[in-house]
Amino acid sequence: MPSTLEELAKLSGTKLVGKSDCKINAVNTLKSANEGEISFLSNRHYTSFLKNTRASAVILTENDLANCPTNALITDNPYLAYAKIAIHLYPDNNRKSLRQDNIVTGENCKIDSSVSISANVTIGNNVTVGSNTYIGPGCVIEDNVTVGNNCLLIANITLCHDIKLGDEIILHPGVVIGSDGFGLAQENKQWLKIPQIGSVIVSDKVEIGANSTIDRGAIEDTIIETGVKIDNQVQIGHNVIVGEHTAIAGCTGIAGSTIVGKRCMIGGAVGISGHIEIVDDVVITAMSGVSNSIKSPGVYSAGIPVTENKIWRRNIVRFRQLDELIKKIMNKLDND
Amino acid sequence: MPSTLEELAKLSGTKLVGKSDCKINAVNTLKSANEGEISFLSNRHYTSFLKNTRASAVILTENDLANCPTNALITDNPYLAYAKIAIHLYPDNNRKSLRQDNIVTGENCKIDSSVSISANVTIGNNVTVGSNTYIGPGCVIEDNVTVGNNCLLIANITLCHDIKLGDEIILHPGVVIGSDGFGLAQENKQWLKIPQIGSVIVSDKVEIGANSTIDRGAIEDTIIETGVKIDNQVQIGHNVIVGEHTAIAGCTGIAGSTIVGKRCMIGGAVGISGHIEIVDDVVITAMSGVSNSIKSPGVYSAGIPVTENKIWRRNIVRFRQLDELIKKIMNKLDND
Amino acid sequence: MPSTLEELAKLSGTKLVGKSDCKINAVNTLKSANEGEISFLSNRHYTSFLKNTRASAVILTENDLANCPTNALITDNPYLAYAKIAIHLYPDNNRKSLRQDNIVTGENCKIDSSVSISANVTIGNNVTVGSNTYIGPGCVIEDNVTVGNNCLLIANITLCHDIKLGDEIILHPGVVIGSDGFGLAQENKQWLKIPQIGSVIVSDKVEIGANSTIDRGAIEDTIIETGVKIDNQVQIGHNVIVGEHTAIAGCTGIAGSTIVGKRCMIGGAVGISGHIEIVDDVVITAMSGVSNSIKSPGVYSAGIPVTENKIWRRNIVRFRQLDELIKKIMNKLDND
Repeated sequence: MPSTLEELAKLSGTKLVGKSDCKINAVNTLKSANEGEISFLSNRHYTSFLKNTRASAVILTENDLANCPTNALITDNPYLAYAKIAIHLYPDNNRKSLRQDNIVTGENCKIDSSVSISANVTIGNNVTVGSNTYIGPGCVIEDNVTVGNNCLLIANITLCHDIKLGDEIILHPGVVIGSDGFGLAQENKQWLKIPQIGSVIVSDKVEIGANSTIDRGAIEDTIIETGVKIDNQVQIGHNVIVGEHTAIAGCTGIAGSTIVGKRCMIGGAVGISGHIEIVDDVVITAMSGVSNSIKSPGVYSAGIPVTENKIWRRNIVRFRQLDELIKKIMNKLDND
Repeated sequence: MPSTLEELAKLSGTKLVGKSDCKINAVNTLKSANEGEISFLSNRHYTSFLKNTRASAVILTENDLANCPTNALITDNPYLAYAKIAIHLYPDNNRKSLRQDNIVTGENCKIDSSVSISANVTIGNNVTVGSNTYIGPGCVIEDNVTVGNNCLLIANITLCHDIKLGDEIILHPGVVIGSDGFGLAQENKQWLKIPQIGSVIVSDKVEIGANSTIDRGAIEDTIIETGVKIDNQVQIGHNVIVGEHTAIAGCTGIAGSTIVGKRCMIGGAVGISGHIEIVDDVVITAMSGVSNSIKSPGVYSAGIPVTENKIWRRNIVRFRQLDELIKKIMNKLDND
Repeated sequence: MPSTLEELAKLSGTKLVGKSDCKINAVNTLKSANEGEISFLSNRHYTSFLKNTRASAVILTENDLANCPTNALITDNPYLAYAKIAIHLYPDNNRKSLRQDNIVTGENCKIDSSVSISANVTIGNNVTVGSNTYIGPGCVIEDNVTVGNNCLLIANITLCHDIKLGDEIILHPGVVIGSDGFGLAQENKQWLKIPQIGSVIVSDKVEIGANSTIDRGAIEDTIIETGVKIDNQVQIGHNVIVGEHTAIAGCTGIAGSTIVGKRCMIGGAVGISGHIEIVDDVVITAMSGVSNSIKSPGVYSAGIPVTENKIWRRNIVRFRQLDELIKKIMNKLDND
């Protein structure tokens, strides 16, 4: 749906500098954009591409306006304005067309007539699916599951029995929700599996990335609150609670019974121990290990970024002697 | 199956203090339990909930008895007793009901008549499946695979050709067993794929979590011994051997040809290099990297837990100069 | 296909020492090989098995010849010669036999008549599949996807709409290509999903391991160049470019818009930040975190390998005080 720049300025809440009737039909990068396309500048890495862009318009901050060779939409947050314009230009409509065949549905299901179910889907008994939800090929929905309205289950997803999903949820391929948690008791050095009788509650507007897994609760429920965004290959243990509007980047793992606050930003490949609590508004940078509760908002980090292998090897040797070395130095200093 | 407290005391090997005819029909947490429910106290995080619990009984140690407001089952290991009671109260019976349809089975298969196969399952040629095994929707079993008795293959699992599973194995959704290992030889800076001709042998009572992957052997077999428990999103490389009753937490990766001993406990997001050996009874804490063999039992750790970003940044700078700094300090001390 | 040692020497470019008419019909390890089998020695871990091997021939370097009790094939690169011989002895032919049934195909598809499609596959509209490609059970191919010639899609793979795969590509079970990237803009502390309108281009001879995920581009495309080899459970973010003949080991994650050069070797469980650039011919060892661009070829490392927990605890305490401690020491030294 092509639009004029004036329309895009209005819907994105930006200030237009240039031709208000300029027609825009696509977004593109500063480097690759052509006539009829709009671009944006929000990351310093790409500033050098602004000067020579062939885009018909660029979303940017007041500061960058001087270097803009074309029409501009000015805002303090170009990325947000870009998001709104992209949502307008690309209404999501490409997953309604797969043929419906080979579908197996159990008994006592309440599936709204507006639901689109694709081929090779398996649905158990007593399943409820709300209006306009899309269930893609290869999905498995076990008994007693509830899925809300306007959800997208892209493909090859497994929803285990007795879990409950809200509205406007997007699940990417390979997602598993409601698998058994890692609940084991030890007896004579062997493991006894503990029945996992809790559920998973996923609230509205949650998005979960490809091949991510969320375990069902051991006794009470695992809970993913409203607006939480989870990237690919994230693992959420049993009885975890993730507070609303928290975002979790790829490859992160959260162990059982941990509570993550609201509006947190968890970087990629972070590991969070079990039975701890992270308050609201915490940022944890990529690859950090968190083994104790975090009690104040703020930015937290860990890990040692790469150096040349030769230097790293030497530093590692020192790290392994660190306590010993520092004691020795302190002693020597005190004795002098 | 509701039981009296006396029956539960007996099957869990605990000492009953209170009414032996008290009826118990469910487990619950100290905080949420109501009449007719039993709870337990095994983690210090939850001690404060004991005093006001509404549970009809609590499993706990002698030490906590004084603060217990209700009937008690006393034991040195409340978590184990809880496990036994939960197993009794919740016999696993919820995965026999999915309609059987759209099933494709190859030639020369020996599938016991007691096997329950769900919809949209694909089974190749020469496949053997033992009695009372459940094969959930979307599972793929390639040629020449053997699956034992009383296994649960929940959903969307892939068993590649020529692998062998024992009895009482539980595989959660998205598990892949027998994929090719990462076997590559370099020629003129390009990669040549090496045929992966080994198999995977999974012994009895193994449980493997959602979306975990186990590669087939390059030449000999990858082996997962009896009673091993593997959490979600774990990656096991080709020719790895995992010794019996070892437990591996989520997001851990073990590179090719490594041998992990018996009764080890590997934490979450641990990385273990290839071609090394870890002896029996080793504990490795979460997020540790293991690049050399571990030759004695014990607890091993690595990694730097999070600190505030501001402090971390300064320490990182120092770490990168560590060898240099310490040399400088030592020199100065020696010269004084 | 059994061969004489002479034939194997010729095809592997090695020098034969021993009986040229010795018949070889299998490969095996030094430890397990029997008559009629060939083995190899390329890793020092296994040198001790050479002396007593029962193999009919061993591939090794000139240096190890003196300890070889049987026929030998001599080369500077035994692993490469082994690869060539294994490829010859085990031509890949075991995935053509699954019954073709329950297949659902959309409209306007161009699927070559030589393509083998297995049971429970779902194919959308406008899909093109080249000659001799194998599509295993449970695979989902959404609309407008192109798959080239001689590809192997083993099982339960999801190819999202509008992506493009070249020739001779191998995808292992559970692979997801073209899922939405983690593109979010923040407004009033909530997340707005940004349409992901780019594609994924996977070039010829790429292999991708079980349960790995590759996101589609946000605007432009995610690109995996010729000959790239990706292990299991790897996550590649939107707009990443991976240069030709680069190998990426298991559990590694690469965040969005990062460019990885040609012929790089990325170890297991490495984390690479977004929007950075790694030049050609870089080696990154396992479990390293890379948060800045790498501008020169070479070997890079990070992380702290495991030590005994008791020692680690002490060193961690020191690390957390590192900057402070070193300042204190420096001060004291300067004041003396």
